[in-house]
Amino acid sequence: MYKWLGWKNELSYLHEKTIMKKILILSVLCSILVSMKPVAKKHIVFFGDSITQAGVGPKGYITVLGDILKEKNLQEQYQLTGAGIGGNKVYDLYLRMEDDVLAKDPQVVVIWVGVNDVWHKRSYGTGTDADKFEKFYNAIIKKFKSKNIEVLLCTPAAIGEKTDFSNELDGDLNKYAQIIRNIATNNNCPLIDLRKEFLAYNLANNPKNLDRGILTTDGVHLNDAGNKLVAEAMMKALIR
Amino acid sequence: MYKWLGWKNELSYLHEKTIMKKILILSVLCSILVSMKPVAKKHIVFFGDSITQAGVGPKGYITVLGDILKEKNLQEQYQLTGAGIGGNKVYDLYLRMEDDVLAKDPQVVVIWVGVNDVWHKRSYGTGTDADKFEKFYNAIIKKFKSKNIEVLLCTPAAIGEKTDFSNELDGDLNKYAQIIRNIATNNNCPLIDLRKEFLAYNLANNPKNLDRGILTTDGVHLNDAGNKLVAEAMMKALIR
Amino acid sequence: MYKWLGWKNELSYLHEKTIMKKILILSVLCSILVSMKPVAKKHIVFFGDSITQAGVGPKGYITVLGDILKEKNLQEQYQLTGAGIGGNKVYDLYLRMEDDVLAKDPQVVVIWVGVNDVWHKRSYGTGTDADKFEKFYNAIIKKFKSKNIEVLLCTPAAIGEKTDFSNELDGDLNKYAQIIRNIATNNNCPLIDLRKEFLAYNLANNPKNLDRGILTTDGVHLNDAGNKLVAEAMMKALIR
Amino acid sequence: MYKWLGWKNELSYLHEKTIMKKILILSVLCSILVSMKPVAKKHIVFFGDSITQAGVGPKGYITVLGDILKEKNLQEQYQLTGAGIGGNKVYDLYLRMEDDVLAKDPQVVVIWVGVNDVWHKRSYGTGTDADKFEKFYNAIIKKFKSKNIEVLLCTPAAIGEKTDFSNELDGDLNKYAQIIRNIATNNNCPLIDLRKEFLAYNLANNPKNLDRGILTTDGVHLNDAGNKLVAEAMMKALIR
Repeated sequence: MYKWLGWKNELSYLHEKTIMKKILILSVLCSILVSMKPVAKKHIVFFGDSITQAGVGPKGYITVLGDILKEKNLQEQYQLTGAGIGGNKVYDLYLRMEDDVLAKDPQVVVIWVGVNDVWHKRSYGTGTDADKFEKFYNAIIKKFKSKNIEVLLCTPAAIGEKTDFSNELDGDLNKYAQIIRNIATNNNCPLIDLRKEFLAYNLANNPKNLDRGILTTDGVHLNDAGNKLVAEAMMKALIR
Repeated sequence: MYKWLGWKNELSYLHEKTIMKKILILSVLCSILVSMKPVAKKHIVFFGDSITQAGVGPKGYITVLGDILKEKNLQEQYQLTGAGIGGNKVYDLYLRMEDDVLAKDPQVVVIWVGVNDVWHKRSYGTGTDADKFEKFYNAIIKKFKSKNIEVLLCTPAAIGEKTDFSNELDGDLNKYAQIIRNIATNNNCPLIDLRKEFLAYNLANNPKNLDRGILTTDGVHLNDAGNKLVAEAMMKALIR
Repeated sequence: MYKWLGWKNELSYLHEKTIMKKILILSVLCSILVSMKPVAKKHIVFFGDSITQAGVGPKGYITVLGDILKEKNLQEQYQLTGAGIGGNKVYDLYLRMEDDVLAKDPQVVVIWVGVNDVWHKRSYGTGTDADKFEKFYNAIIKKFKSKNIEVLLCTPAAIGEKTDFSNELDGDLNKYAQIIRNIATNNNCPLIDLRKEFLAYNLANNPKNLDRGILTTDGVHLNDAGNKLVAEAMMKALIR
Repeated sequence: MYKWLGWKNELSYLHEKTIMKKILILSVLCSILVSMKPVAKKHIVFFGDSITQAGVGPKGYITVLGDILKEKNLQEQYQLTGAGIGGNKVYDLYLRMEDDVLAKDPQVVVIWVGVNDVWHKRSYGTGTDADKFEKFYNAIIKKFKSKNIEVLLCTPAAIGEKTDFSNELDGDLNKYAQIIRNIATNNNCPLIDLRKEFLAYNLANNPKNLDRGILTTDGVHLNDAGNKLVAEAMMKALIR
């Protein structure tokens, strides 16, 4: 009986071993499958103005960022979506944040706005008051955070690339960049300080104090070097 | 026993009569009390800029409207509340509509905004784009209507009283007045067309084509005649 | 000797008669030639902004005016010269009046300026103060009159063709048009009131209240109908 | 006859000697008188805007400069005249240079203008185009130099005293300051670089990065420290 039992036990033991093996194989397969699932991709939406609208173009900064992810073999882990519209100011973002960002269900949003809030004061008389800029910006962040979305902020890079602060709108742009830095601090949001990085790059690479052509085509919109600088700065902030 | 009963009945009859009388008296008293109840007052909030902020002053249009109601012995039926803040544009109203209007639980809101949306283009470079003006205005109306609040709209009256459309900002002010007229039509909101009424009054009373001093002190803010005209125009629209 | 002399005298007499005849014929011929001389042409310079710069184009108002003169067989009596530069305001005209007008030695100058003095307030923040507009305008007229040049003034026609004064800059444009009307009166200069004529034409031909496409391509610059209207208005004022 | 002649000659000789002596004495006296004459005062006119208009006030920079001259016992050598009018831009100076400067027959003119050329872009839409700023500025200098007047130029000091170039109009003010520096170089005019001196002073004395209260009352107009700094900077440039 013991033997029998023993045999039975042995049989059962063998059987268990087989089951265990199968489970092991299955779980390995599962983990492989899981690691391949598209669900796992982190969805990043880039929310901004014409600079971001151009970001999804063939040489745009979002495209370049995608290329960097491929080089690092990280392309399966991230989904990048552009949500830029030309001429947008902070309250344009506020008015379309539900449709153009929340409806896409992202885990991360990169907000890059401010150039038109300053520029439109001069060109149309419809720039944004500094205090209202802050209020609408905070309202956007509050909304995204309430949906557990991680929010990263960017300072406006440039309206003119001259390095001695003699671009016409430098004073106001510095002021609004500082407002964004303070908003980032107050809301514990990572900051991508593009204004600071553009100035540093120009101080090193713009000895003739030109107002365009170093990182931009027209003082505002990115050329290839600009798209590369922005993509790399975003990479550092996003992929840690 | 019958007699007794009869008497008892008589007594009871008398008693019932007394009770009935008391009830009658009581119900009359009640109905009087009810008619005196403050609960019945219709609460009207005036939502606007510096012109409305001044409206609650000793000679302001809201005060004058209250005086007219008293003359007509209607003061018990209406509660008037000013919610004007100097320099406000449409999105300032949007940002404070919860705290300054909804929190006061009104049955009616009179919105009077637009002068600064045009004026600040010139004075600060921070006026409101026409399309954004419409979007925020519609968002305010939608919010109020969702709370079953009746909404009345006013056109901006004047930035300068000259009658030949040579006040500097007349073109833009006409444009924004027309936007408000269209919003009123689209939302089935009663319109108080103050711009039209101011022009008609000036055509009759401003033969020297002065830019101020007829209905305003400075081309924008109301003098006594202006407060009277506005109060009467509001009276006509509110008390029908 | 006397006879000889007599004969000689007779001969000389005959000779003198012949000479006199020849002189007579010659002087008649001369006077005919003189009356045909191009020197007699009245030189008219059109002094203005981009509208006048386009005026010398194949379909421009100055070209059309030249065609009308040909039709009337008056082309030999007038020389038409365009002196328009895009973006010019009144003090641009002031700064180049010596080089671009006086150096061409005209008998007549038609000044047409004002659109940019108003428009640049919005687009660049560099429009012209009303009082300075008047001072520089008067200085130009004074200079031309000191050289015995006849000066004709035009009001700015339009920035937007809507007829209900809801074009954004209508108020300010009406104001500057009125300043020019007053300058014309004060300086005894003929006035070509293009603003008035454009409005009259649009009231008759723009039933949909469009902001462009009736007399202009973009609200400011002339289409074929606009060039025709301006040429005819100038014709009436110049050729009396 | 010879003797007579000789005597006569001698007499005449003596006479001539006496006359010569008298002339000598007279001319010495004259030269003394001349050296004492008030005509010898160097007349300096300060030509500018509201800052210069306030300069002749009890604590204004021109008054302070006069006090410094007295301390140095130089008051008899200089006559200081203020010619500042509030709100003036470069072409206001141009329009009144004959009446307000040349009519006063100065040896030296200090031109200090530029704040309103930048500021009025924002506040009235009537700032000065950069290229026109340069043209009118050069025209003023040319006129003064043609009358053998020495011309000194000042850069606009500040619109806001923050030291990190985040005052709203810093970019444009830096641009116009640089235009003036170039004009000074091109015309061989001494430069009083008040913008540079104000920034240096603020970097040392404005640790909280305030926008007013260090050298100005309101970011533009001088307080006591500002008047002192400007007077001393002018002293250095004027009295060499």
